Amino acid sequence: MFKPVKNTKVYEHIIEQIQNMIADGTLKQGDKLPSERDLAESLKVSRASVREALRALEIIGITEVRQGEGNFIKTSFDNCLFEPLSVVFMLNKGKAEDILELRSILEIETVALAAARITEEELKELEELLLQLKETEDEGINAFLDKKFHYKIAQASKNFLIVNILNVISSLMDTFIKEARGKILNCGDNTEVLMQQHEEIYLSIKNKNPKAASLAMSKHLQFVYDTLMKEKTPIERL
Amino acid sequence: MFKPVKNTKVYEHIIEQIQNMIADGTLKQGDKLPSERDLAESLKVSRASVREALRALEIIGITEVRQGEGNFIKTSFDNCLFEPLSVVFMLNKGKAEDILELRSILEIETVALAAARITEEELKELEELLLQLKETEDEGINAFLDKKFHYKIAQASKNFLIVNILNVISSLMDTFIKEARGKILNCGDNTEVLMQQHEEIYLSIKNKNPKAASLAMSKHLQFVYDTLMKEKTPIERL
Repeated sequence: MFKPVKNTKVYEHIIEQIQNMIADGTLKQGDKLPSERDLAESLKVSRASVREALRALEIIGITEVRQGEGNFIKTSFDNCLFEPLSVVFMLNKGKAEDILELRSILEIETVALAAARITEEELKELEELLLQLKETEDEGINAFLDKKFHYKIAQASKNFLIVNILNVISSLMDTFIKEARGKILNCGDNTEVLMQQHEEIYLSIKNKNPKAASLAMSKHLQFVYDTLMKEKTPIERL
Repeated sequence: MFKPVKNTKVYEHIIEQIQNMIADGTLKQGDKLPSERDLAESLKVSRASVREALRALEIIGITEVRQGEGNFIKTSFDNCLFEPLSVVFMLNKGKAEDILELRSILEIETVALAAARITEEELKELEELLLQLKETEDEGINAFLDKKFHYKIAQASKNFLIVNILNVISSLMDTFIKEARGKILNCGDNTEVLMQQHEEIYLSIKNKNPKAASLAMSKHLQFVYDTLMKEKTPIERL
């Protein structure tokens, strides 16, 4: 049977080839990609098309250019300049409830995994974040620490995919946590409440108690949800 | 205070501008982007840089080129050619367990949301998939139907972010479901077992019973996990 001719565009063909080389292990982290000229020759395409494809890989955060040396597969993927998921979410006018729902689903489970899998070093880092959160008065810094606290827990779960999902929605999380904290703190003296909730999460992880950790996280996110919903007018709530 | 000079590269600057225009609502789905020339002039950069940035947005699946008309923000984001998350997962030699763990976390909850939020039309489509799964003997097609069944449930949850997360790991899910089904069916006469499990999931959604739906999904994924682990040698299991 004939296979449908799927990719008519040259750059799609190039990207697909590179994606395949990564999938079958030919290209690994830190590897140098063939030169523009070699890629153009072996794929029988123009160098301009190769350049476009390479630039796209760089923008997506898969490769990096080392001056005078060429294109390399990155070794760390913590920062992506471009977050397609966040952009698509914004284009679709995604609701804050969606973010909170996803966070509840992911974090109530990852915190249990973290309680079972956290290392002593990670535990110390988590405690350090909590101490900073307690001592800092600047709300801008606190929003940042709050997010770091939740990300550290995801890392401690040791599930690489989940950490990466949180990374690709990082700017959504930024905006969400900043706005949520703003509204919650506006709503009365909730600084102490938020602090206690984070402390409870930390302690249950420290005690390696997955069930207690899930419960503490669930209580925290439910509080965030309730406070945010209360802030809305009845029409916004629909 | 001075802001750190973060982006030194011209294309990063262009992408950031477009990302901001999406975030603040200036650019919406279906909108035409300014022409290459206008972008170059207003951003004071070369047309070559603009072209690179536009091509990258197209590759990521945010925009599309309409021949002779220009670049438009897409109206549908169901298919992405390039899946950064899948590629990063492969580069990090991610484990099948990570995928299954993420699926358990996401799907046990989304199936409960689906049971509460599914429309009559979606329910019919789900039933149709189940019937096809029952009648088809071709395992290649069945793996495809199996994946569609799980995606339909995610859609019915109405959480846009979760549907999108599953979309960006679509090729990982493809490979995973195909391999998992292969191993499970190899392990004995499990066709009937898999069929019953999908049926149970469908029925609990049809009965609008979130708890039963979560339980059925959890039983299904646990069965997949156990069978996959049994297939491994003791060393692989570590």
